[in-house]
Amino acid sequence: MEKLIITAAICGAEVTKEQNPAVPYTVEEIVREAKSAVDAGAAIVHLHVRWDDGRPTQDKGRFKECIDAILKVCPDVIIIPSTGGAVGMTAEERLQPTELPIEMATLDCGTCNFGDEVFENTMPMMRDFGKRMMANNIKPEYECFEMGHLDTILNMVKKGQAPGAPLHFNFVLGVPGCTPATVSNLAWLVNAIPAGSTWCATGVGRHEFLLAAPAIAMGGNVRVGFEDNLYLEKGVLAKSNGELVAKVVRIAKELGREVATSAEAREILGLKKK
Amino acid sequence: MEKLIITAAICGAEVTKEQNPAVPYTVEEIVREAKSAVDAGAAIVHLHVRWDDGRPTQDKGRFKECIDAILKVCPDVIIIPSTGGAVGMTAEERLQPTELPIEMATLDCGTCNFGDEVFENTMPMMRDFGKRMMANNIKPEYECFEMGHLDTILNMVKKGQAPGAPLHFNFVLGVPGCTPATVSNLAWLVNAIPAGSTWCATGVGRHEFLLAAPAIAMGGNVRVGFEDNLYLEKGVLAKSNGELVAKVVRIAKELGREVATSAEAREILGLKKK
Amino acid sequence: MEKLIITAAICGAEVTKEQNPAVPYTVEEIVREAKSAVDAGAAIVHLHVRWDDGRPTQDKGRFKECIDAILKVCPDVIIIPSTGGAVGMTAEERLQPTELPIEMATLDCGTCNFGDEVFENTMPMMRDFGKRMMANNIKPEYECFEMGHLDTILNMVKKGQAPGAPLHFNFVLGVPGCTPATVSNLAWLVNAIPAGSTWCATGVGRHEFLLAAPAIAMGGNVRVGFEDNLYLEKGVLAKSNGELVAKVVRIAKELGREVATSAEAREILGLKKK
Amino acid sequence: MEKLIITAAICGAEVTKEQNPAVPYTVEEIVREAKSAVDAGAAIVHLHVRWDDGRPTQDKGRFKECIDAILKVCPDVIIIPSTGGAVGMTAEERLQPTELPIEMATLDCGTCNFGDEVFENTMPMMRDFGKRMMANNIKPEYECFEMGHLDTILNMVKKGQAPGAPLHFNFVLGVPGCTPATVSNLAWLVNAIPAGSTWCATGVGRHEFLLAAPAIAMGGNVRVGFEDNLYLEKGVLAKSNGELVAKVVRIAKELGREVATSAEAREILGLKKK
Repeated sequence: MEKLIITAAICGAEVTKEQNPAVPYTVEEIVREAKSAVDAGAAIVHLHVRWDDGRPTQDKGRFKECIDAILKVCPDVIIIPSTGGAVGMTAEERLQPTELPIEMATLDCGTCNFGDEVFENTMPMMRDFGKRMMANNIKPEYECFEMGHLDTILNMVKKGQAPGAPLHFNFVLGVPGCTPATVSNLAWLVNAIPAGSTWCATGVGRHEFLLAAPAIAMGGNVRVGFEDNLYLEKGVLAKSNGELVAKVVRIAKELGREVATSAEAREILGLKKK
Repeated sequence: MEKLIITAAICGAEVTKEQNPAVPYTVEEIVREAKSAVDAGAAIVHLHVRWDDGRPTQDKGRFKECIDAILKVCPDVIIIPSTGGAVGMTAEERLQPTELPIEMATLDCGTCNFGDEVFENTMPMMRDFGKRMMANNIKPEYECFEMGHLDTILNMVKKGQAPGAPLHFNFVLGVPGCTPATVSNLAWLVNAIPAGSTWCATGVGRHEFLLAAPAIAMGGNVRVGFEDNLYLEKGVLAKSNGELVAKVVRIAKELGREVATSAEAREILGLKKK
Repeated sequence: MEKLIITAAICGAEVTKEQNPAVPYTVEEIVREAKSAVDAGAAIVHLHVRWDDGRPTQDKGRFKECIDAILKVCPDVIIIPSTGGAVGMTAEERLQPTELPIEMATLDCGTCNFGDEVFENTMPMMRDFGKRMMANNIKPEYECFEMGHLDTILNMVKKGQAPGAPLHFNFVLGVPGCTPATVSNLAWLVNAIPAGSTWCATGVGRHEFLLAAPAIAMGGNVRVGFEDNLYLEKGVLAKSNGELVAKVVRIAKELGREVATSAEAREILGLKKK
Repeated sequence: MEKLIITAAICGAEVTKEQNPAVPYTVEEIVREAKSAVDAGAAIVHLHVRWDDGRPTQDKGRFKECIDAILKVCPDVIIIPSTGGAVGMTAEERLQPTELPIEMATLDCGTCNFGDEVFENTMPMMRDFGKRMMANNIKPEYECFEMGHLDTILNMVKKGQAPGAPLHFNFVLGVPGCTPATVSNLAWLVNAIPAGSTWCATGVGRHEFLLAAPAIAMGGNVRVGFEDNLYLEKGVLAKSNGELVAKVVRIAKELGREVATSAEAREILGLKKK
């Protein structure tokens, strides 16, 4: 098996300091959380940003500020800014980080319910996002919450509307309204990706580690972090993203799977050396 | 195996006479198509209605007029009005047919892309729809386009927010943006429904019969009709919904599956005798 | 989709004239059944042979006699002799037809219960069979009754112990003791074959057409015939293998799948032109 | 989720001291290994026995001696003697431990290749085994290496030929010749068991923990031990069965799954209190 690429989704757009005081808002806090994750073994930081009061933003300047600050202390880390943003943002708003010199960005592959809200990713939007990433040489992490999302992006790739092989997918399972985070569902989705692709599993909430373990066993990669889950174990808040990453590292060690550095992750994902 | 329940989706909201002149708009045309389907073997008519110029509507009066007219010539048929309506309609608009004395109605179980459009079925909307159907003793046909939709409605049923067992599902596969119409996907979804449920498969476009045949073989039920597909075979427009139903009947006969009358369908679905 | 290759398993080793008087024993009867199948649309005849009293045999001379006689009236047909033979035969006995100038032969990929009997295909036997087919330029039809059989042969192919790509599989489902003939099981097995392979589905007994229909819809190929099933429909004995083949042709027509000639089948299977 | 039942297969019939000096042969060694496993968290010991020179045996007296000796130091543990024995043993030989006052025993559900050997479990044998266990009030652990094995035993249970619900299955995956130890295969098999059943996963060789982790995440139970695997991690021999059990306990802890005592396991499995 390839080495395991751990992604830390350190911030998200919706979790708050009220839920877990370690959730980062300021640039300093974001750097702190990124560093804790990287120190623990994360090769990638998946990045949302906030204003100092916690409001989510896709502001290009704020992203630049955070990315620069992270790279100052973690010069080798791969940063994947979100283009998902927060519910209610426009496509143009969400696309802002793709104007920065970044290696990768997420691209959400379909519209779906997120609890009582709608997470809108229409096909016209997706074509805009795909076009932008092709133009700016950004490798997408294709986020799929449903089988239909996977099919949608595979069709777009076939038509040249989004960056092509080698493809990288993130199966985000357990969002209320979307495919539940079962091992069976994960296996079914993974069976449907083209040969030569890489993939990552993200289990939401209490499913974070329940999905991470089988993903590690299957040869996939894993995302954890405050964006998806605030707890180290039942009833125990994680003190940092690093704690969540460290837990994945421990599971990987038990399963005999080595953890990739950022440089190794770049090679596995087909990114240019840094 | 139980007898096969064939549903004819005779009209839909989006297909037009330009695409197939047999698409019904007027009450008379709707009756004609319903009768052709029932005569060919359909136990259920899934009903959208139109104004005479073809515009889709969920108008309560128009539904009443069409239902009354169909029952005049097909007194025993089960009619399942749509609450999906057409893209862009409000929930209240879509709910109108549930104010009529009907046995069943569709209930769409999630938001998703439909090609370049969004088919909006938020959780708050779904709770309204579920509440209405419980109040009016209407059995829902739970339409699922994704695994997440199935999970959503199962959770709502558990919470008492939508009518409970025996549940009836319709897996609509092949809509651009949603789960593709493969046999493998159908099997995976069917494996996830609770014991004691009934289900139906709907393959969109050229997948109509490619999904119907395995559904018949699996012991499921089948929906066909102009709403989903206008062709009897490649390049040959169907002259009526009855032609599409007749084809399902022929396949069922080859596979040794008997076709249910409307009375038998009522028994299988747990509806009251008429 | 590729055209549909229909295989007729006209004889088998275990069914008898007592069960269905049309079961062939003599050379003349075998020719009659082969011709009926080919006339109805079969591109391939899967061949077991018998002595005139019905006892199964793998006798090389008897195989030669039958093959020559079939080719006299069906000069283009692909004949796939069985190397499965009948329960209790030795490997050497079973291998006899591979000494004839044949295009293909079956290779059974594992040991399993067949009702109260054991169908023995040990790994050492399989290696002998693979070696022989490589030496004699015979393309195997890899018969798999279980997921483990598929895995076994894939491992042998990797090690060069059996003929390699393009691989052709026959999933024989519904034998008592082996994987049941469900659509879900077929889909799961088909998902596990290497890209570029071809496959065929064989449903035993009353599952013959219930498995054929989804196989056609999935783009696979189909085997029917007296070896697997003696009935045209419930309670009605088939009068010939041709009747069973004709039924598959009718289902294929309903599903818009064209039927391959033997010449087309050779191309699809990667066999030399004849 | 229910608490996790860990089974330790401490001895097996084929592994040797040459491969790992901690493999137990003598009664004292078997007790030592059983104790190490129970101390580490195993609720069940799956038991094969050997003569002092290492030869496997199903001798009733030897089983009695070992069971008595284990229960002396681990009075609460559930012991599941094997009726699989070793390749080449007769059914009667294999059945000997069922004459002792035991709570459970394994029942292998089909014939299959085990590498170059055949593991014979014909249907007549299985009916004998089922009958014996019903007569002696022994709950079987139904060992399935293939989907066909699961189907076979479900049919036998339906016919009253083997002990009925609540059923307990052990999916042993990764034996050369049988279903490979993938997460996808495990999920597919587990999806096929009747509601209300319990199950365990056993991954052979280097798959031991790669299958254990997803089984824990899925709510299943886990078997580890020298019978299946001799290594704690790549290149590192386990010093005791306890080390292997301890590793499962650590993974379970990371995944938030509590470990069942033998008393709790009895309750989960529907056994009588001791």
